[in-house]
Amino acid sequence: MERLLRKCQIRNQLLRECLAECLGVYVLILFGCGSVAQVTTTQEKKGQYLSINLGFALGVTFGVFVSRGVSGEALHLCVLGRHPWKKLPFYIFFQVLGAFLAAATVALQYYDAIQAFSGGELTVTGPTATAGIFSTFPADYLSVWGGVVDQVIGTAALLLGVLAIGDQKNSSIPDGLQPVLVGALVLVIGTSMGSNSGYAINPARDIGPRLFTYIAGWGVEVFRAGSWWWWVPIVAPCVGALLGTLIYELMIEAHHPASPSELQTSCVEATEGKPGLELEGVKSD
Amino acid sequence: MERLLRKCQIRNQLLRECLAECLGVYVLILFGCGSVAQVTTTQEKKGQYLSINLGFALGVTFGVFVSRGVSGEALHLCVLGRHPWKKLPFYIFFQVLGAFLAAATVALQYYDAIQAFSGGELTVTGPTATAGIFSTFPADYLSVWGGVVDQVIGTAALLLGVLAIGDQKNSSIPDGLQPVLVGALVLVIGTSMGSNSGYAINPARDIGPRLFTYIAGWGVEVFRAGSWWWWVPIVAPCVGALLGTLIYELMIEAHHPASPSELQTSCVEATEGKPGLELEGVKSD
Amino acid sequence: MERLLRKCQIRNQLLRECLAECLGVYVLILFGCGSVAQVTTTQEKKGQYLSINLGFALGVTFGVFVSRGVSGEALHLCVLGRHPWKKLPFYIFFQVLGAFLAAATVALQYYDAIQAFSGGELTVTGPTATAGIFSTFPADYLSVWGGVVDQVIGTAALLLGVLAIGDQKNSSIPDGLQPVLVGALVLVIGTSMGSNSGYAINPARDIGPRLFTYIAGWGVEVFRAGSWWWWVPIVAPCVGALLGTLIYELMIEAHHPASPSELQTSCVEATEGKPGLELEGVKSD
Amino acid sequence: MERLLRKCQIRNQLLRECLAECLGVYVLILFGCGSVAQVTTTQEKKGQYLSINLGFALGVTFGVFVSRGVSGEALHLCVLGRHPWKKLPFYIFFQVLGAFLAAATVALQYYDAIQAFSGGELTVTGPTATAGIFSTFPADYLSVWGGVVDQVIGTAALLLGVLAIGDQKNSSIPDGLQPVLVGALVLVIGTSMGSNSGYAINPARDIGPRLFTYIAGWGVEVFRAGSWWWWVPIVAPCVGALLGTLIYELMIEAHHPASPSELQTSCVEATEGKPGLELEGVKSD
Repeated sequence: MERLLRKCQIRNQLLRECLAECLGVYVLILFGCGSVAQVTTTQEKKGQYLSINLGFALGVTFGVFVSRGVSGEALHLCVLGRHPWKKLPFYIFFQVLGAFLAAATVALQYYDAIQAFSGGELTVTGPTATAGIFSTFPADYLSVWGGVVDQVIGTAALLLGVLAIGDQKNSSIPDGLQPVLVGALVLVIGTSMGSNSGYAINPARDIGPRLFTYIAGWGVEVFRAGSWWWWVPIVAPCVGALLGTLIYELMIEAHHPASPSELQTSCVEATEGKPGLELEGVKSD
Repeated sequence: MERLLRKCQIRNQLLRECLAECLGVYVLILFGCGSVAQVTTTQEKKGQYLSINLGFALGVTFGVFVSRGVSGEALHLCVLGRHPWKKLPFYIFFQVLGAFLAAATVALQYYDAIQAFSGGELTVTGPTATAGIFSTFPADYLSVWGGVVDQVIGTAALLLGVLAIGDQKNSSIPDGLQPVLVGALVLVIGTSMGSNSGYAINPARDIGPRLFTYIAGWGVEVFRAGSWWWWVPIVAPCVGALLGTLIYELMIEAHHPASPSELQTSCVEATEGKPGLELEGVKSD
Repeated sequence: MERLLRKCQIRNQLLRECLAECLGVYVLILFGCGSVAQVTTTQEKKGQYLSINLGFALGVTFGVFVSRGVSGEALHLCVLGRHPWKKLPFYIFFQVLGAFLAAATVALQYYDAIQAFSGGELTVTGPTATAGIFSTFPADYLSVWGGVVDQVIGTAALLLGVLAIGDQKNSSIPDGLQPVLVGALVLVIGTSMGSNSGYAINPARDIGPRLFTYIAGWGVEVFRAGSWWWWVPIVAPCVGALLGTLIYELMIEAHHPASPSELQTSCVEATEGKPGLELEGVKSD
Repeated sequence: MERLLRKCQIRNQLLRECLAECLGVYVLILFGCGSVAQVTTTQEKKGQYLSINLGFALGVTFGVFVSRGVSGEALHLCVLGRHPWKKLPFYIFFQVLGAFLAAATVALQYYDAIQAFSGGELTVTGPTATAGIFSTFPADYLSVWGGVVDQVIGTAALLLGVLAIGDQKNSSIPDGLQPVLVGALVLVIGTSMGSNSGYAINPARDIGPRLFTYIAGWGVEVFRAGSWWWWVPIVAPCVGALLGTLIYELMIEAHHPASPSELQTSCVEATEGKPGLELEGVKSD
């Protein structure tokens, strides 16, 4: 077995990173959309909105644990542009692929449940709608402009938090616990910014599963619903990420006095033979 | 970009601290009041009282993470008077400003939701009241005196817990996890002391959003409601903070035997190049 | 102020420990019974059974944080008999005192709420009963024998878990996080063993508040209810603690190979100038 | 006492490991099935589906804390085949025994409650069914094939997560916190994959309690229900564990560049005198 694995070893760094990204987003969507599927198909008998929040929160935590050793947390880093720009298209493709495959897995695991709940009709709106298991849709009252504002604020809050967690001058969180705190951040965004349009706050998280539902039988309605809502969770998070980064840089980061300690790696890292925190790297961009 | 940021660098320590305070309280209110907005406008369909408790708890955690590297956790330190007294007015102003801006952000993000829920009428009491999203109001049964007692006990409990967490002789919690425990403390205060009058337990948390609602259309009723309730969450927490500090000092802190270890900085701190825990500093006042 | 505190300094070790015990149990009951008060008087509108579980869990966590630096976690250690036996009566007295005072505080904080909920009548049974806020009562279906079994199993599970957390050969949990895990243990005991008779699993936690309700107006019914239930949460936990300790010792602890590492203090402890983990000490009895 | 314990000391490593396994699974089932018993017999008045998820999650956490110092986390390691194959039958026997005894304990603790809830009739299906407290049964809509898929995906997700947590190149989680994260993993599997068939994802967890109910009065129906469902949670998890391991190895593990750091033990481990992380060992198979 071990020899077999060695043969499969990929030495290409970019491909390794892309595989890790793919699996990381896969885990996020598997747990996140799985929780929505459970709450939806049992009509809140086996879980409530809070369990959906927990699903995405811990999905992010374990998604980061899966991928961070290889690629860093590209989920956010891509947006931040920490990695070289030419890597970005590859990352995006593999992230969307991971989200697509996870949506397919959830659909497979909940096939019987979705059939029973929806009576076999895959609809996007109405009382037995199931498209919302996979991608986000706005609440009835939400205007498009309100949706853009919602996603911009949500993603800005995410970035503010991620940068604070990763800023060694501020937080000094043990390396191994950063993914847990990023999960907690996603949890609180879910409890405080989830009701307007389902806190996508990440393009890949939303478009991958939406593509899956488009192909798998829900049809073009998944793009048309909510006044062609689909582009908002792709465009607005990019603006929000920029905004959140700017706010943190201008209000906190820029004013840190430069210090020699920036060049030291902490004792903990050194003893574990890891060259550096990936989230920490955020500040070097 | 980096050069631009360097130009913006503020070397004035007080201004840096004030900016950090402002952003810290902003994050707290954004997540806290955002959770109330979500639960209120969805009529508990997307969240319950527990998600409000989680919203304020994690709001405090991430608010502290954002500001602690620069200013320490002024939220509580101001009350404790650890910082020089002449800094206090600046801190208070920027904290209230942060809370005010966060309330404005929540109102912006939930604009459509509040319009749909309230039918466009911004009221302070009644079945579609929305002022409670932003600032606290007492339960119908609560007397003013009962409200004062409630806020004094709540803030005393907060201070007891914060001092225990920061007392290195007692807890020896890893530096990076103290904000998480302060969040857990706010969580349990929310589950055990939230129903009487909404656990403001902090003047800035309450008056900033109240000022916003006063200006933004809810009118003078936000001050008049609950027999002019508004002054209680400003005055009572100051008394409670003093009381909690006294209890902890008299029952625990004062009796610690003096030891040389007080002068040592722990290994963890030393390697991370941070001069000291800010919460630890509480005991030196 | 500092000089005043120095004058108050108590050098008597036993008195210091007793004060710490008193305050630790006070915090536990303040948050625990406070959560029950909130859920009861709001008729589950501001909290559910899970928030009660969280209240007692985090109450234990912060109670331990408050007292551990001085007295160790006497809550459990008393039962285990780790401290010299002659100290036991003092500990018990101050623990019961702390629980009594905390119950009085909860009654004060929820005075208006209890009046409004109960219509001013302080009853032990019936639809507006409020004695259950303070001390435990068995479910209608529970026989006395069933209650004894329930409390023995609950306390045995508590001890099993506490011993596993404190057993350095097994867990190697960072010192500062042990109270958090003890809280998590109390949480899971609450979700899995709470419905029969309210998981007192600690004599002081139950008799202190019961004495308060007896004096404060609920009358002798607090002892008579549930076929004189009151003695069960005092006697059964002692049996359960013994049983849990025996099981852990016989199945795990006794078979650890003796090793020189038992004599070493870990690096983390050494650098923080603390002579030893108090929970760790459990194994030396 | 200590001398007595020394006499009981078992030097046989396998027997020690088996005892630890037995107690570990016992704790898992005691808290997990106990939570189901509480929610079932109180008809969700004292807990909801989320408290069941918490029960199993923290059950796993404390089960691992109890057993890990002696035997490693055999729950998963057995499936992974990390231990020598000839030990496997012993492990399995003692795990099933632990689950069986825990089910008996839950039945004892909830005897009165089960009698009151079910009217004394121990049934497997219907409105007052109580067999589901102990072992898993599929939802009405679930086909056998759907159940197999459900269990394969659930166990694969478990293994993916466990391997990521234990992979030092990826996560670098402090040793003592790994059981907490494994618990969080079980929590999110419960919120996202629990509604189809109760996330057994472990043969011993399911067959032990099922055997108990078979003997204790529920009869052969516990095997017959759900079209002879009982074999699915035994067979499918084995397939799922293999699948999850393969995916992680092929997508992440196999591509780690070999490094000298693999041979070093981390500083934390060394100072605590523990030869190695047991979960870490997973990667060496």
